[in-house]
Amino acid sequence: MIEKFYKKKQNIIINDILKLLKLNKYKGNKKAKVLNVKDVFSAKKNEITFFHKLKYKDQLKRSKASFCIITKNFLNFLPINCNPLIVENVLLSLSKVTNLIYPNSTNDDFDSDLTNINNLKKFSNISFGNNVLLGKNVKIGKNCFIGHNTIIESNVIIGNNCSIGSNVIIRKTIIGNNVNILDGAIIGKKGFGFFPNDKHNNRYPHIGLVIISDNVEIGCNNIIDRGSLSNTIINNNTFLDNQVHVAHNVKIGKNCIIAGQVGFAGSSTIGDNVLIGGQAGISGHLNIGNNVKIGGGSGVIEDISNNDKVMGYPAKNIKQFIKNNK
Amino acid sequence: MIEKFYKKKQNIIINDILKLLKLNKYKGNKKAKVLNVKDVFSAKKNEITFFHKLKYKDQLKRSKASFCIITKNFLNFLPINCNPLIVENVLLSLSKVTNLIYPNSTNDDFDSDLTNINNLKKFSNISFGNNVLLGKNVKIGKNCFIGHNTIIESNVIIGNNCSIGSNVIIRKTIIGNNVNILDGAIIGKKGFGFFPNDKHNNRYPHIGLVIISDNVEIGCNNIIDRGSLSNTIINNNTFLDNQVHVAHNVKIGKNCIIAGQVGFAGSSTIGDNVLIGGQAGISGHLNIGNNVKIGGGSGVIEDISNNDKVMGYPAKNIKQFIKNNK
Amino acid sequence: MIEKFYKKKQNIIINDILKLLKLNKYKGNKKAKVLNVKDVFSAKKNEITFFHKLKYKDQLKRSKASFCIITKNFLNFLPINCNPLIVENVLLSLSKVTNLIYPNSTNDDFDSDLTNINNLKKFSNISFGNNVLLGKNVKIGKNCFIGHNTIIESNVIIGNNCSIGSNVIIRKTIIGNNVNILDGAIIGKKGFGFFPNDKHNNRYPHIGLVIISDNVEIGCNNIIDRGSLSNTIINNNTFLDNQVHVAHNVKIGKNCIIAGQVGFAGSSTIGDNVLIGGQAGISGHLNIGNNVKIGGGSGVIEDISNNDKVMGYPAKNIKQFIKNNK
Repeated sequence: MIEKFYKKKQNIIINDILKLLKLNKYKGNKKAKVLNVKDVFSAKKNEITFFHKLKYKDQLKRSKASFCIITKNFLNFLPINCNPLIVENVLLSLSKVTNLIYPNSTNDDFDSDLTNINNLKKFSNISFGNNVLLGKNVKIGKNCFIGHNTIIESNVIIGNNCSIGSNVIIRKTIIGNNVNILDGAIIGKKGFGFFPNDKHNNRYPHIGLVIISDNVEIGCNNIIDRGSLSNTIINNNTFLDNQVHVAHNVKIGKNCIIAGQVGFAGSSTIGDNVLIGGQAGISGHLNIGNNVKIGGGSGVIEDISNNDKVMGYPAKNIKQFIKNNK
Repeated sequence: MIEKFYKKKQNIIINDILKLLKLNKYKGNKKAKVLNVKDVFSAKKNEITFFHKLKYKDQLKRSKASFCIITKNFLNFLPINCNPLIVENVLLSLSKVTNLIYPNSTNDDFDSDLTNINNLKKFSNISFGNNVLLGKNVKIGKNCFIGHNTIIESNVIIGNNCSIGSNVIIRKTIIGNNVNILDGAIIGKKGFGFFPNDKHNNRYPHIGLVIISDNVEIGCNNIIDRGSLSNTIINNNTFLDNQVHVAHNVKIGKNCIIAGQVGFAGSSTIGDNVLIGGQAGISGHLNIGNNVKIGGGSGVIEDISNNDKVMGYPAKNIKQFIKNNK
Repeated sequence: MIEKFYKKKQNIIINDILKLLKLNKYKGNKKAKVLNVKDVFSAKKNEITFFHKLKYKDQLKRSKASFCIITKNFLNFLPINCNPLIVENVLLSLSKVTNLIYPNSTNDDFDSDLTNINNLKKFSNISFGNNVLLGKNVKIGKNCFIGHNTIIESNVIIGNNCSIGSNVIIRKTIIGNNVNILDGAIIGKKGFGFFPNDKHNNRYPHIGLVIISDNVEIGCNNIIDRGSLSNTIINNNTFLDNQVHVAHNVKIGKNCIIAGQVGFAGSSTIGDNVLIGGQAGISGHLNIGNNVKIGGGSGVIEDISNNDKVMGYPAKNIKQFIKNNK
């Protein structure tokens, strides 16, 4: 699906990558084709993967990838079919390689190839407002509403019975059925990911999407960033109130209720049936279980088990919170 | 006033309601007319009210309503003129009835019946920008400014000497004189109210308005939701900074100062001359007195008496907060 | 530079000021010219300055200003060349004088003198979207992108290689090279400054600008208010995530990383290489040193020294925070 949204450079050979990363000790065939870059779970023959966390060593051992961006100390885990690309900073090198293969994934300049929906015949069965702009290959289902000044960029897919408000911007996104997206929401921009550098930060490419399932509601002025290598996901029947911020790679389960001004930092996973009160913040890379309740204004900085109720900053079991604050 | 903003279904009889709520033990005249749905304070003859909180039992006893959505255990409080509609979940049933009577109050699809202000002769004495869209029956006073790309939906009333910024969306709202609404504000959308359901949450109808009195300032990107059965109100000379979130049914008094990123959950009432620092959050259904000061970043989870100064999370008397944090 | 952005009233004499402030005991030449209003550091001959904080008394003694708004008790510090304008409330009087000299600095009505960029020949080398509106004398460098529905008001300057998103509003702002401004950002509106008054708050004039240096990124829906007398400044290579609020007169150093939903109250100064986690709030008039790290969700209410790491509300040294919350 990614390749529909991101233009991929063709005819790359491993020597292009070696030059890019300034690697001159490579021992394999320098003319070998490079077809894609993927994580260690999904990379196949003629594709590049990367390895920087020990907990994935078993996946690496079984990987079918032909190339792996890796540091010297982890070479032992590399299977025989996989050629090492030995670097000092795996993520920075990965970023450069991704940017080479998907040259439009780092900058998020506006989509200049839009058409006013009035001039597109195939959308005659949709109710739409003034000044609605659609990119190439946008698909919209039956019985949808699209408000004034809304921008839907190329390749976005929207299901049936969706109501999109006014002043909405959607890119790099797939939306299910019966979804409401309220006024002013901005969905699918690249995440806030980069390698800090004293002179000029290096932005991280974002080749992920935003996936919004059936019956979801996205509130006014919500910002939902797309994933970097994986996707940002909001599952069935989850409702988000106004001014919520969802950073890249976040996954939110089904039947969740997220109140106003909540913020999710990058790459956290939220279970099903989770209730989060207004202004709560969820730090990055956390696992929040199913049926969790998080009090308004809480700051969550560690994982939460299924069925827990927490509150406070840092968020603690709610009974302890109430006791501490008597 | 509500009926100007919400189309009301005509010729409803109580049998329509009985079918909707699947009630088959009703003993009154099934052909009796139903003219409206209102709270227990204001419902009159031929109108439906509802009862689910004991503290309103005296109002119920005096009610002139002809019908009442009620649970079995409260039947004793019903006056003789009022026919019971006995249900298990009063609010869910009320929601269904409201939706039947006001069929456009649950979904908030964009207003598709707008006209570019350039094509409307009666607004020739207003200073307006590019691409300004107005709905039917919008009234705007003298000496007003309306910025670019702003959308004002049907029946909205705006007083004299108001300055509305660009990219603003206003619906279901009545605005006084000398009001400033800054760029990007979204006023009058339905609130975040629904009955959670595993398959498909049931949205709550919102037949309230937003009422903004004279001399108010609404900051950039503020979201102010309209009321469900009552109105969301912002009183005279109250100023809101940027990115403030005001949920449904909130009432804010006069001469208040609300700093940036503050959030109000639904149905809280704020007194006059209240100061609230940036990023503070006010939970739902609270009463905040007059002349209260709430420190920036506070999380208010209980009522506050007149003249109190509070800070912290949960917010406490400011002296205690400072002592605790030495 | 200010005079390019704010129309200045010509031919003001000190008698105009005396009438405005209702001062009838003035002893100097009532026909003396008044050319400008400035702070005590920069005011020159024929200009008005003001004095209300003892810590600037040495500056006042050396001031070349011809007039000074001052209270009775500070008259001793006034140099002989400077005529006193003796008032009770220095800032309120300053506000009135500034408003007289710069009559367009108090209200922020939309810029009604914009032109669709399609009709402007000199921008043919820029990539721009639909419905882009530019004010008079806007300057935009080479190789820039400007998204759909974006509004750039009069006199704004934008450097080379900048990418401006869609639905952006920019006024009273100077932007360097290689700057990214993401969708929905609102930059340069007047700050939330006014003198509270029971009947009708008096807005404070804002004659400052927003200055954004090279390589900066401003996130989606950020609001960055311009300065009142000084400027709001964001230095080189600082990145702001989504929904950040920057109030008037804030200065942010270079190479800072500001995560989502952070809020800065007015007039605080942030050093270089500062990291601020999501949803943190920085109170007004604070000094945050260089290389400071502020944890997500923190509420900072006092100055922070260079190299400190803080967390919590109120924010404390991070080691103490962790110890307190074990």
